[in-house]
Amino acid sequence: MTTPMPAPKISIRIDLPNGSRLGPGKIALLESVREKRSISAAARDHAMSYRRAWLLIDDLNRAFAEPVVTTFPGRSQGTGAQLTPFGARLIELYRAVEGATAETGAAPIGEIVAASNKLYEPGALTRSRPKADGEGADPPA
Amino acid sequence: MTTPMPAPKISIRIDLPNGSRLGPGKIALLESVREKRSISAAARDHAMSYRRAWLLIDDLNRAFAEPVVTTFPGRSQGTGAQLTPFGARLIELYRAVEGATAETGAAPIGEIVAASNKLYEPGALTRSRPKADGEGADPPA
Repeated sequence: MTTPMPAPKISIRIDLPNGSRLGPGKIALLESVREKRSISAAARDHAMSYRRAWLLIDDLNRAFAEPVVTTFPGRSQGTGAQLTPFGARLIELYRAVEGATAETGAAPIGEIVAASNKLYEPGALTRSRPKADGEGADPPA
Repeated sequence: MTTPMPAPKISIRIDLPNGSRLGPGKIALLESVREKRSISAAARDHAMSYRRAWLLIDDLNRAFAEPVVTTFPGRSQGTGAQLTPFGARLIELYRAVEGATAETGAAPIGEIVAASNKLYEPGALTRSRPKADGEGADPPA
C-alpha cells in the first residue's frame, strides 16, 4: 500500500539582462493586484508591508519597457491600482515558463523526487546542530 | 546597429515533498565538492563559512534516501570529502531540468527578455527610496 507522493513545487527565477529578477513572489503579487485592484490589499495577501509591495511593483515597472501596474494617486490607498495589459501578459509568460519546465522536466524532476527521503524533516539550517541521536531537538516553528 | 542581448540566467528551485529545497546554490556547492574533494575548499569557492557549507551538505544527505557526499573524518579538514555516485546523478538531473526549461521555455523567456528595459539599473530594494528625480542616489555596492 503506497501513498501517492505529492508533487514537488518548482519555482523559476529569471535574472534579466538589466539585473532585475523575476520570480514567484513578484508574479504572485501581480496576481493579487489584478484580483484586488489595490497594492495595500495585495500586500496583505502576502503578509508584507505596503512599502515592500510598492518597491517590488516599482522595480517591475522600471525593469520593463512598459509598466505592469498603473496607480491612481487621486484615490484612497486601498483602491487605486490596476494591472496593465502588459502586466497580464507578463504573468502569462512566466506561467508558461513554469509549465514548460513541469512538462519537459518531468522525467528528471520525477527521479529527484523518487530519490528523496520521505522521513526527513528539514530544519538543520534554522536550529542548532542537533545532538547525535536527534533526541530532544525541537522542530523549527 | 543592435547589440545582441545577453542571455538571462534562469534558476530552478525544487521544493521536495519532505520540505527540503534543491536550488542553484546547493548544486554549485556539490560541484565544488566534486572538484575540490573538500568541504572547506568548496565553502571558500562560494565565500561561505565551513559551518554553512557543512549544514547545506548535511541537509542534502538527509533529504535523499542515499547520501550525496561522504566524508572521511580521519583525514584533515581540507581533504576529506567526496561526491557519491548519487550526488553526481543529482547534479546531472538538476542540470537536465534547467536544460529542459531553457529549451522549451525559450519562447516565453525570449519575450520576457525582449520586453525588458535595457536602461534600468535595479537597486530600489537595497537603498532608500530615491529622490523624485533620481539625482544623487548612489547605486548599491
